[in-house]
Amino acid sequence: MVLKIGVIGTGAIGQDHIHRISNTLSGAKIVAVTDVNAEQAKAVVNNENMDAKVYENGHDVINSEDVDAVIVTSWGPTHEEFVLASIAAGKPVFCEKPLATTAEGCKRIVDAEIAHGKQLVQVGFMRRYDKGYRALKHVIEHGRIGEPLMVHCAHRAPSAPGCTGDMALTDSFPHEIDVLRWLLNDDYVSAQVILPRNTRFAAEGLQDPHIVLLETKQGIRVDTEIFVNCQYGYDIQCQVVGETGIASLPEPSSVLMRSEAKLSTEILVDWKDRFIDSYDVELQEWINCTVKGEVNGPSAWDGYVVAVTADACVKAKHTGQIVPISIQERPSFYIKQLVL
Amino acid sequence: MVLKIGVIGTGAIGQDHIHRISNTLSGAKIVAVTDVNAEQAKAVVNNENMDAKVYENGHDVINSEDVDAVIVTSWGPTHEEFVLASIAAGKPVFCEKPLATTAEGCKRIVDAEIAHGKQLVQVGFMRRYDKGYRALKHVIEHGRIGEPLMVHCAHRAPSAPGCTGDMALTDSFPHEIDVLRWLLNDDYVSAQVILPRNTRFAAEGLQDPHIVLLETKQGIRVDTEIFVNCQYGYDIQCQVVGETGIASLPEPSSVLMRSEAKLSTEILVDWKDRFIDSYDVELQEWINCTVKGEVNGPSAWDGYVVAVTADACVKAKHTGQIVPISIQERPSFYIKQLVL
Amino acid sequence: MVLKIGVIGTGAIGQDHIHRISNTLSGAKIVAVTDVNAEQAKAVVNNENMDAKVYENGHDVINSEDVDAVIVTSWGPTHEEFVLASIAAGKPVFCEKPLATTAEGCKRIVDAEIAHGKQLVQVGFMRRYDKGYRALKHVIEHGRIGEPLMVHCAHRAPSAPGCTGDMALTDSFPHEIDVLRWLLNDDYVSAQVILPRNTRFAAEGLQDPHIVLLETKQGIRVDTEIFVNCQYGYDIQCQVVGETGIASLPEPSSVLMRSEAKLSTEILVDWKDRFIDSYDVELQEWINCTVKGEVNGPSAWDGYVVAVTADACVKAKHTGQIVPISIQERPSFYIKQLVL
Amino acid sequence: MVLKIGVIGTGAIGQDHIHRISNTLSGAKIVAVTDVNAEQAKAVVNNENMDAKVYENGHDVINSEDVDAVIVTSWGPTHEEFVLASIAAGKPVFCEKPLATTAEGCKRIVDAEIAHGKQLVQVGFMRRYDKGYRALKHVIEHGRIGEPLMVHCAHRAPSAPGCTGDMALTDSFPHEIDVLRWLLNDDYVSAQVILPRNTRFAAEGLQDPHIVLLETKQGIRVDTEIFVNCQYGYDIQCQVVGETGIASLPEPSSVLMRSEAKLSTEILVDWKDRFIDSYDVELQEWINCTVKGEVNGPSAWDGYVVAVTADACVKAKHTGQIVPISIQERPSFYIKQLVL
Repeated sequence: MVLKIGVIGTGAIGQDHIHRISNTLSGAKIVAVTDVNAEQAKAVVNNENMDAKVYENGHDVINSEDVDAVIVTSWGPTHEEFVLASIAAGKPVFCEKPLATTAEGCKRIVDAEIAHGKQLVQVGFMRRYDKGYRALKHVIEHGRIGEPLMVHCAHRAPSAPGCTGDMALTDSFPHEIDVLRWLLNDDYVSAQVILPRNTRFAAEGLQDPHIVLLETKQGIRVDTEIFVNCQYGYDIQCQVVGETGIASLPEPSSVLMRSEAKLSTEILVDWKDRFIDSYDVELQEWINCTVKGEVNGPSAWDGYVVAVTADACVKAKHTGQIVPISIQERPSFYIKQLVL
Repeated sequence: MVLKIGVIGTGAIGQDHIHRISNTLSGAKIVAVTDVNAEQAKAVVNNENMDAKVYENGHDVINSEDVDAVIVTSWGPTHEEFVLASIAAGKPVFCEKPLATTAEGCKRIVDAEIAHGKQLVQVGFMRRYDKGYRALKHVIEHGRIGEPLMVHCAHRAPSAPGCTGDMALTDSFPHEIDVLRWLLNDDYVSAQVILPRNTRFAAEGLQDPHIVLLETKQGIRVDTEIFVNCQYGYDIQCQVVGETGIASLPEPSSVLMRSEAKLSTEILVDWKDRFIDSYDVELQEWINCTVKGEVNGPSAWDGYVVAVTADACVKAKHTGQIVPISIQERPSFYIKQLVL
Repeated sequence: MVLKIGVIGTGAIGQDHIHRISNTLSGAKIVAVTDVNAEQAKAVVNNENMDAKVYENGHDVINSEDVDAVIVTSWGPTHEEFVLASIAAGKPVFCEKPLATTAEGCKRIVDAEIAHGKQLVQVGFMRRYDKGYRALKHVIEHGRIGEPLMVHCAHRAPSAPGCTGDMALTDSFPHEIDVLRWLLNDDYVSAQVILPRNTRFAAEGLQDPHIVLLETKQGIRVDTEIFVNCQYGYDIQCQVVGETGIASLPEPSSVLMRSEAKLSTEILVDWKDRFIDSYDVELQEWINCTVKGEVNGPSAWDGYVVAVTADACVKAKHTGQIVPISIQERPSFYIKQLVL
Repeated sequence: MVLKIGVIGTGAIGQDHIHRISNTLSGAKIVAVTDVNAEQAKAVVNNENMDAKVYENGHDVINSEDVDAVIVTSWGPTHEEFVLASIAAGKPVFCEKPLATTAEGCKRIVDAEIAHGKQLVQVGFMRRYDKGYRALKHVIEHGRIGEPLMVHCAHRAPSAPGCTGDMALTDSFPHEIDVLRWLLNDDYVSAQVILPRNTRFAAEGLQDPHIVLLETKQGIRVDTEIFVNCQYGYDIQCQVVGETGIASLPEPSSVLMRSEAKLSTEILVDWKDRFIDSYDVELQEWINCTVKGEVNGPSAWDGYVVAVTADACVKAKHTGQIVPISIQERPSFYIKQLVL
């Protein structure tokens, strides 16, 4: 069976997903697309030489009889609406982050999905599909470092022209929030944000870097340096300190050079290169699970927890306090993680 | 267009290719299979849940009207016959190494393909598709180490139960022979083989390790340690020394561990893990090129040159001499590398 | 001129210093020793085959006409007394840490030294003499990472049988307190201590690990993981994050191994091996400076600041609060850092 | 006892040794110096502020009653004469390489020393005192890689203005010849030299790089790349491949940098920095052994074997042949390695 997909939003990430589904992945095809810019949607269909219909709007895509499953890659503020509509139509939906722009919006999706009675929503947290993070999880779960006690992370980008206000916390950091919960099988109970000396490369009035301290239910302490104008590269670090040893995320593979009095490997500068393979794995697994009627990736619940945690970080930053994070227990609906 | 493929030989590597084409790659499907063990061929079709017909023999697969292109993964001594038959049928053929068991056999395929007038044959040297080797080639071609002068290589496997006689030279080493020619855009003019002190882990009467010294037309010197009972892991090394710097093949990515008084990364032990991603890239590129009527991978000519070079190494080993390698100029047929 | 040294305390570290001065270093000799255990002092003199007199007590050593300079390596609670006596005698004194067991004690030494009018005291913070920390300081001071913004440290030991109560903060951490001030040319303004999930390897009732957060006058944020039962090794890490790059303390040099499916280097397990070379450099520089009438190493003031900072960390641990650290400005007496 | 040393030759290396003996090492002092340039010798005595007499010539130094032991750091062609004179005078002598400019000259020293009946001569092969090589030897001797089968080495320098003719073989390579014999407890039986494509950075008419292949009595194969215009740094590599694993010489310790899209450590460019610590260890051990009446370092025999091996390499280079190396058995005189 070939999964017939409708895509809402043909901007950069939408085009990427369309291209990988059409040219690299197996078992699916794009049959429907739409965009607020209809001309762009048409151009994408032409460029990819696809046999896909261009629809007026997202709701028409969702409701089209041709469409088995929906991908939402439109502007963030529209995500909630299209995900809710997909649930209403009973169709599996893959939504790029954010699931919704507020924790309340995420909660409405969770409630709607539970009311619908069957899990349909997956959120685009692609780090869970990164080979390195998966290897790290494997090491932890096989007891090779004992019980995790601390995690030291860094999220660095060379520069951040559009990263204003609290976006380092609401836009960059959610990837760590999600992947660390998954890595540790744990949830957060408090957040604190430390504001180090500012880099001269930060835009006027903006703080950079931040250090976020999270505490988990098990008492594991996570510290993450978020430094979005670090100049030197796009560099994601994650070091898990356990009772008997330490495991660190692999550096991206690179030719080892001896030249100009340096022994060196390259550090990536473009974030798109860092997780490009993860997108392929993510979408292929989503296709495979969707065909089987399952959702195995980051759920609406995960999207909601990330939103609540990011909100706590923003509050912690502005108050200078240690902010408690209180989330109800994971609903049993999301524990089985299988669509019946 | 979906490329319809017939597979001759459903042993281990045949099954791997069938599985990746059916489940991972895009743009092709298996429509025909055969094997000397017909029951096994049927079992593979069932296990993969494929809509593919099981044929009596390889010639029936090649000549089936359903089949657009052929993959030869049968026993080595049958390769020449099926590749020649594919050429005769005018069908693109991907043949796992060896192209033929003798240099003469390879030459017959080259001659048949030239006589046919259109390039159809690709040989399964997958290292050219490895991300690491490609990154290394990129570094060299962008002048980052100046002109290459020497290459230091190692080809190590933990143990080699079936590696008898000169198989280290005829079976393991051809991968280096091919990939280094491609890396350097050069050909070999002589071979010498050095026999170091033998490991106690070599089987009775067998030499291990070998050191092979190759000289290229440009005077580049390549030394390769081939050590098939090295115990510690499957470890492929390639270091290119240029006029201004040195570039080395990346180590496979691995979690960095601090434990038990060691700072360590893992070394693979199973050769299948080392180039598993390369097989995907290799077959996907073959499918894409085949659909466009092109051959861009290792050609019949490359398979022939590898066979001639391996023969020289065997002679060098048994004589202790520096053995000249004389290969005619690459036929212009293989220079354009494009099917018209 | 050969500097004639008297040593107070011939326990482990005292014996080490006696041995290195007698056998490895240049320009000094031991002429006087004492210990609460007089027999042990005599045995050390015999074992080292030294021409040194054994005195009744520390004051006799200090006041001996034979003695040009004093080394205090006795039990911690006696340090203050002997350092004050050395100042009273106008003799240069090298005192192993702690300078005194309380900040008040340190302050009394500072006051006595200032009243004496000439700098005489050096404290045994040997990390400033480590090749790696010196290389790190060189990199920072040459602007190769821009202005420092954050420092991420770890102080790990495999096990800590005698490390009770708050000793991780008062005994292990002072090395970081001193070396980071020196590295950054800065002082601390606040401390916070985070208590992660406890390792099962910690002794009953003891917290391990700790995370200490320090803020400097310039706003640099220092986080240090102190983990004294980490099992895997003695591992000191220091990573300075600057505006344009990051510099990390070198790993101790070690043979690179490929064996048993691992690519590895050794991690030290015994703390004595980590800074052994630093002790030689420290004492040789102290001898050379003392002969010239100078004090260039960690001063009494540095010992005092470390004590005040460690006290703040202990308070921060027990209150869970961010504790301000208020230290008066460095007296001008300690700014010139030269004995007139 | 303080060893009283006379130094013949106060050029660069002579001055270095004088300085380290006077300022860094323990147990010796310089009492006599001489140089063909008497003014320079006087200047050195003044600069170092030493209580040493300047003699007319080397023989006066050797025969001075004040002198217990001799260091020969004069021009290479004078070494043999001064070493023979020291033996005649029955005085321990440390001679920088070469021991003599010809194998015959070395043999004359060996014969004279044996005739004298007591070992007196040590040759300045300082790599045996390098921490890294010693760690490598420790790993081998503790069986951690099984029996050695192959050694892959590189000897690279950024440029070589004065390196003419066969000096890469006669001047640079002797360090490898010596240290590898010592590392492997073995001797050489044949040499072959391979001439790769020449770098454009080699001076007119000079070959660079060379690859030297040595075979030992045990059948271990050593390949060494000697590349004296490699541009990028001074880089000494040594990788020993054993039956169960591989051990490599540590890289010199260096701050790990993340900057400008590179993860890097520094490679040294000046050879003097690479083995600077080894000179200290070498001379201190020589002083200590000399005081005890022993010679434990590289002997006259070692100097002779190195000369014979280097000669074979030169012959191998010019003939293109595999040149046998035949050296008589090590005389029993040199086996005990102890002065009676």
